Amino acid sequence: VSQTNDEVEKENGGRFGQGFPPESIAIVGISRNGRSKVPGYDGLRLFQGLRDYGYAGRLYPVNPKADEILGEKAYASVVDIPERLDLAIVTVPAPAVPRVIDDCAAAGVRYVHVCSSGFGETGLAEGLRLEEELREKALKGGVRIIGPNCMGFNVPSKRITTFPDIGVLPEGGVGLISQSGGHARLFMMNAASMGLGLSAAISYGNGLMLDAVDFIEYLAEDDRTQVICVYLEGIRDGRRLAETVRRIVPKKPVIIWKGGLTDAGSRAAASHTGSMAGSEAIWRAFYRQTGAVRVDTLEEMAEAAMAFQMLRPLPGARAAVMTMGGGSTVQSGDLCGRANLAVPRFSPETQKEIPKFVSSVNQGLSNPMDVPGVLMDPIAFTRLLRVVAQDPNIDVLLVGLPVEAALGGFGQTTQALVDFNRESPHGKQVAAAITDNWGPHEIEKQCREAREMGVPLFPTFTGACLALNRVAGYYRFLGRRDIRA
Amino acid sequence: VSQTNDEVEKENGGRFGQGFPPESIAIVGISRNGRSKVPGYDGLRLFQGLRDYGYAGRLYPVNPKADEILGEKAYASVVDIPERLDLAIVTVPAPAVPRVIDDCAAAGVRYVHVCSSGFGETGLAEGLRLEEELREKALKGGVRIIGPNCMGFNVPSKRITTFPDIGVLPEGGVGLISQSGGHARLFMMNAASMGLGLSAAISYGNGLMLDAVDFIEYLAEDDRTQVICVYLEGIRDGRRLAETVRRIVPKKPVIIWKGGLTDAGSRAAASHTGSMAGSEAIWRAFYRQTGAVRVDTLEEMAEAAMAFQMLRPLPGARAAVMTMGGGSTVQSGDLCGRANLAVPRFSPETQKEIPKFVSSVNQGLSNPMDVPGVLMDPIAFTRLLRVVAQDPNIDVLLVGLPVEAALGGFGQTTQALVDFNRESPHGKQVAAAITDNWGPHEIEKQCREAREMGVPLFPTFTGACLALNRVAGYYRFLGRRDIRA
Repeated sequence: VSQTNDEVEKENGGRFGQGFPPESIAIVGISRNGRSKVPGYDGLRLFQGLRDYGYAGRLYPVNPKADEILGEKAYASVVDIPERLDLAIVTVPAPAVPRVIDDCAAAGVRYVHVCSSGFGETGLAEGLRLEEELREKALKGGVRIIGPNCMGFNVPSKRITTFPDIGVLPEGGVGLISQSGGHARLFMMNAASMGLGLSAAISYGNGLMLDAVDFIEYLAEDDRTQVICVYLEGIRDGRRLAETVRRIVPKKPVIIWKGGLTDAGSRAAASHTGSMAGSEAIWRAFYRQTGAVRVDTLEEMAEAAMAFQMLRPLPGARAAVMTMGGGSTVQSGDLCGRANLAVPRFSPETQKEIPKFVSSVNQGLSNPMDVPGVLMDPIAFTRLLRVVAQDPNIDVLLVGLPVEAALGGFGQTTQALVDFNRESPHGKQVAAAITDNWGPHEIEKQCREAREMGVPLFPTFTGACLALNRVAGYYRFLGRRDIRA
Repeated sequence: VSQTNDEVEKENGGRFGQGFPPESIAIVGISRNGRSKVPGYDGLRLFQGLRDYGYAGRLYPVNPKADEILGEKAYASVVDIPERLDLAIVTVPAPAVPRVIDDCAAAGVRYVHVCSSGFGETGLAEGLRLEEELREKALKGGVRIIGPNCMGFNVPSKRITTFPDIGVLPEGGVGLISQSGGHARLFMMNAASMGLGLSAAISYGNGLMLDAVDFIEYLAEDDRTQVICVYLEGIRDGRRLAETVRRIVPKKPVIIWKGGLTDAGSRAAASHTGSMAGSEAIWRAFYRQTGAVRVDTLEEMAEAAMAFQMLRPLPGARAAVMTMGGGSTVQSGDLCGRANLAVPRFSPETQKEIPKFVSSVNQGLSNPMDVPGVLMDPIAFTRLLRVVAQDPNIDVLLVGLPVEAALGGFGQTTQALVDFNRESPHGKQVAAAITDNWGPHEIEKQCREAREMGVPLFPTFTGACLALNRVAGYYRFLGRRDIRA
């Protein structure tokens, strides 16, 4: 398969990049009434979305039976469009796609994004045959296929979206490549609310001709992209991925979430994208050797991207931790330890300086610090941040705030953090986190309603797994005990 | 210290239980104007809280300078109260507490809950001396002290709360013992919103005379308590704790969260409650030998309690997982794997049965299942649940729902889960979890505002630790690379 990719590259002069983001797009498979023959993909909605969100290029609807679509002139085929297209988006049913590829080849279309499903991912003979037919026609015709079975992309700078329910994302420095359209969609849905701006988000479906590495290389060269995020299930050419990532890492961080590293996950990946998932050991070596940043969930990926966007380089992973309340401080220390974030003792100078203005009554002045009084006193807090900033044992400051702080109860405390990061004394930076983010929030309330009806609904999947395992473990213990007795 | 406990037991005829929950309470240290001399504890607010929340016993304000407090007759001392009291709650400043203990001894008060701080937890000579004085006076006078430096308790059946801002909790089967008043408060604040009812919540501060084990034994005997939750930082007598828990576990689950099992966490515990935290290895053996259920965060503790409350015994930890979307299914499989929840292959019978009514187009029919169509079709979903329920490889069913489901978008799907648990075919039960609970919620919006001001605020502390470590690790990698180059 990797050889075939090489052939594509040779024939096309480069895999992905030239002509992207597209200056011109045709939508092929666009009904007048909006009823798509392909479940989940609707050419009319895509067309409408691109137009309404203000796509910055030229847009052409293609429908042999219509003269116009939503007031725009419609074309019978891509060959009738009076310019060489950068992109055709195809939503016709799978059996009709090879014919469209022929047309695109004849019209000199650069990329064909095949939304349609019904190819290799079905595992059925007909789907595999159709996929092979696509590949042959595309290779012969000099057309590069994105997909098939692919939800597409989002490029804020050109106001391009193939996710009409999400629209165009806020522009920013995070580039996303995802083997799963669902994960791409979820990432995009949440990026804006997290305050993450995107340079481009690209899902690539079955990855028939263009694979993760091609898109990663594109983002590496893209000046708008400062951080690259990648969701992978499997890859065709591990060596090429490793070499590419290793080459890119010194220029910008590459965050990789590898799905399917457990037994059950890898079985799901095989059935989702037909991927051979690879072992935990192989991927651990991959991360170590390439410098790719490992994350294990979508949320971790987004938070790592956010941290890279917001923080300048950190000299190390030794944190000064400041929280409120003894129990909360113990918990914060444990959470740091489990995430391998060091919480060293302060230097003798810092230890001498802090008691000069921080009372030890009901407070703990060693690291991790329990300083409720200080956190509610902006003047003392500002001073404490500055004293800790000059400690040579400390690389970064981390403040643990109760949820009320996030909900606006400690305005001046937040201002002290804002001012600190603006001035960044001794080059140090501060991050903050909510220490008690569970319980009486929107989602938990909804979960409670399900529970009141008899369904134990958990706000997180991890939480459910842990809790079920604990219940099972308890009864397993009782069972063993009975046997011994 | 443990010897002293034994002496107390001998002298008092049992450590804790008789006379609790109290039928009569005096509040000592209650100002007329509500201005407490002890920061954080306010006798007037405690009194008002107990009265307004409808305490089911007799309540006496004690103030030598007042005739009445909020319209209730005030007493100059506990000795003037015309009955033998079960409990005196003391909020006078630390130096005045020994005198109150003398009065309580003279009046035959059973328990004295000392809210006041300024004792052993300060680490100062005067505090330690005062604490020793309390102990001697209490031993001599036959009085049992809860605390000092203690936030107290919540007993819904008697409508008792020493947390006026939280009020009386909904009654239920979860009993909580916490060495940290802050964690107890947080647990109580969130219990109601989670749908957890409490039998009693008890924090015990410095644990001078009555320690975790005493309260655990009480909850073991308490018929209202079905599940015992415990937060510990350190313990005085590890063997007694192990023996006690081991004896209780066959009667009801004992969930223990041990804080301070990492370096930084144990340093914080030493400074918070003066506890020797004990090693990870020792505690791992403790859990294995006693059958106590291990949890590592407050949220895990609450969710484990909720699962024990809602689920009947599970025969094992082999789950059938049903989610929506390929990426989400891979992630769910990985999360199960990492939480040691097995996701076995279905039996041949199940594998043969499912395709009879579930389409494999855009769905994955092996375990973990990717069945978006089924999850939106209550009839097919109900049938699938029943088919999977009879699989001998499966102990429990776990459905992964998108956040929209929790927000009410899939009413009939939820109803299928409700009906399944009501009927419980083949004795099987189903739980559910939200697979995409991050992003555009209340808390995340608040975090974004801080980020827009330049503070990387994370919704969870764990998320912050992981992200900071990733940023640091990337630059560490770059640094090593530069050295090699």
